[in-house]
Amino acid sequence: MYIGRFVVLGKTAANQWYLGYRVSSRSFPNRVIRLLEDRAVVVPTADAPPSNNPYISYNCLRRQGEVTVVANGSHVDPTIDKIGLGYPLRDAMALALLAMDYEHDAYNTPRIVAGVDARSDQGLLGIVGAEQIMVCSLAPDPGEALLVATYECTTPTAVTLAGKTAAELCNALYDCEYELPVAVMVALLGPEGVMLAARSARD
Amino acid sequence: MYIGRFVVLGKTAANQWYLGYRVSSRSFPNRVIRLLEDRAVVVPTADAPPSNNPYISYNCLRRQGEVTVVANGSHVDPTIDKIGLGYPLRDAMALALLAMDYEHDAYNTPRIVAGVDARSDQGLLGIVGAEQIMVCSLAPDPGEALLVATYECTTPTAVTLAGKTAAELCNALYDCEYELPVAVMVALLGPEGVMLAARSARD
Amino acid sequence: MYIGRFVVLGKTAANQWYLGYRVSSRSFPNRVIRLLEDRAVVVPTADAPPSNNPYISYNCLRRQGEVTVVANGSHVDPTIDKIGLGYPLRDAMALALLAMDYEHDAYNTPRIVAGVDARSDQGLLGIVGAEQIMVCSLAPDPGEALLVATYECTTPTAVTLAGKTAAELCNALYDCEYELPVAVMVALLGPEGVMLAARSARD
Amino acid sequence: MYIGRFVVLGKTAANQWYLGYRVSSRSFPNRVIRLLEDRAVVVPTADAPPSNNPYISYNCLRRQGEVTVVANGSHVDPTIDKIGLGYPLRDAMALALLAMDYEHDAYNTPRIVAGVDARSDQGLLGIVGAEQIMVCSLAPDPGEALLVATYECTTPTAVTLAGKTAAELCNALYDCEYELPVAVMVALLGPEGVMLAARSARD
Repeated sequence: MYIGRFVVLGKTAANQWYLGYRVSSRSFPNRVIRLLEDRAVVVPTADAPPSNNPYISYNCLRRQGEVTVVANGSHVDPTIDKIGLGYPLRDAMALALLAMDYEHDAYNTPRIVAGVDARSDQGLLGIVGAEQIMVCSLAPDPGEALLVATYECTTPTAVTLAGKTAAELCNALYDCEYELPVAVMVALLGPEGVMLAARSARD
Repeated sequence: MYIGRFVVLGKTAANQWYLGYRVSSRSFPNRVIRLLEDRAVVVPTADAPPSNNPYISYNCLRRQGEVTVVANGSHVDPTIDKIGLGYPLRDAMALALLAMDYEHDAYNTPRIVAGVDARSDQGLLGIVGAEQIMVCSLAPDPGEALLVATYECTTPTAVTLAGKTAAELCNALYDCEYELPVAVMVALLGPEGVMLAARSARD
Repeated sequence: MYIGRFVVLGKTAANQWYLGYRVSSRSFPNRVIRLLEDRAVVVPTADAPPSNNPYISYNCLRRQGEVTVVANGSHVDPTIDKIGLGYPLRDAMALALLAMDYEHDAYNTPRIVAGVDARSDQGLLGIVGAEQIMVCSLAPDPGEALLVATYECTTPTAVTLAGKTAAELCNALYDCEYELPVAVMVALLGPEGVMLAARSARD
Repeated sequence: MYIGRFVVLGKTAANQWYLGYRVSSRSFPNRVIRLLEDRAVVVPTADAPPSNNPYISYNCLRRQGEVTVVANGSHVDPTIDKIGLGYPLRDAMALALLAMDYEHDAYNTPRIVAGVDARSDQGLLGIVGAEQIMVCSLAPDPGEALLVATYECTTPTAVTLAGKTAAELCNALYDCEYELPVAVMVALLGPEGVMLAARSARD
């Protein structure tokens, strides 16, 4: 099944929170995810054809203090900026989704987001589409994970991902049952801080 | 089961939209619902003890053009006011819920809302609680209904209500399986316009 | 000149922040302001005629930690609730004003608000009317004050109020140049905490 | 004086609304404005050094029906998308500014916006900075214009721009008193529709 891009909120068997993001695409396979210190960025590959589209690259992960957020577009930036001003994660997600809304493309593609606030041990998933706006706190059991996708799985949906490290979870996310992986990224919130890993088809 | 106040979005067997609101209460039985031309109001009964609480009465139904909204508190007013300015119902509900948030009482009681936009034949339910914000479009089948309540049933939940008229649906809502009814109101969106009915324990 | 209800953001000659609120009214003189521990409430006098209007009484002052807010309506409540969740005062004011909007009466009467965050030594005024939404940080000099009113003075306007104590400022606010005072309240943020005073024509 | 980027809301001597946007820059002179059918885009010049910065290009003008909006960043997109959903211009601007907030760079650079709704003959300016959020309706006289800038002129400020056509106004905007022009764009709302013109230093 093809479900487009999706975000993941999960816990390892050792009860550590992790977040994931996968770019799946029928149209734009020429993209990779680059890991920077406090963010991850989706960018075109060196061999991608030139484009006037100003939305081809965006941050897909941002961090602010104890809060980490992944998303399928630039709404990750105002979300994390509001965290820096003191907003709770629920409100920061909801305001960015309400204001920036679904993508006004041919599919009314939803904006999706996942985040963890380590201070309150709280994980949240969110989505805005033409028919809904939703942000909710969820508590996966150790070893379990939930995803929200741009197509088909537009409510929290269980997904099985095996792995103890960011790199292992990254491979599980790349190779999971859903079609057309392009690039994946995982942030594992371990005792020594946030560990990032990424894998891309064209890298 | 006691589920507190709840809103209902349903369709009659004849495929007419209706909205319902029920005040159920352990603490404040001295309340009735009064029907006015374009609204319904929850007010204390004549024999209710005097109170300094400025929130004891509120509009629970408002209409604006082809849009009708019911709610468990004063968020119905900014919601319908934004409809008057041109907002779609999804956004009007979501902005009011995000801004006014759950009630800051001992239970963090959620705000709930239901609405129908007859122009687009669209029905929506919404809720904001400490752990979630949700507004979604729903399409009950003829003869079916969904509720969202302040307690227990905080996601859309099927409820069976028999009736062809506003008054019959009102009685079904008063007498349904959930405990401690105080006052109910139904708005039926029929071919001749919106028909209102109300019933209160203390009236 | 009649400017309706207004909020005040000022500093005493001793450089202490204070907030004020005055009910001026052509239509409803039967109102007083009652001071409670963490709030002030506008309520009808005992001899006021009974009314179905659910908006005749409202909190006009709320406090949360080091933040104090005054307003001409129930938007003070969601504003202070968001402070409790971590919002900065600018955002809490702006979201409540944007969502609750001007009063949909015959005059499109604006909602107005003033607040002080003692942690950041910051004072703000805000207003939403049919033609504008504004929240801004202002820094009156010692002995100076600014007001925003529902009519005429709908941008920050200097006002001279003499007084060292909440009671003295209250009298100055009651007796100032603008017409038809009904009730006034002042919150003085002194070194021992917030001192409240109120005065009403009909008390 | 250097005032950074700025937006303009004006009327020609013939009482036609126009909007302008000027990129002024100390840091990034390698940018031009490209005119497309329903938008204008700020993009790097062909000789600009490669950059990982995902914000170097953005739409600076968008149109939706009778509404035209110019802005100094990507908030123009959610603003115009909400117009498409029915929001009034005041609300569409205010929600995008509140949610996306000032730029979190070394200067807390404000987001600025100007727009005209030809249906209601209404023009608005808006800004969000660390100390303020403001959207207001303004009515310049024929031959007059107001600007809001990212630095110094952060409240509506009169500017004199001579010109009858989009191209003439573009030159006036490029050559006006403020320093370091990089690229300018004007949208003139004439009787035959919206006429666009642009001029860039490096084109």
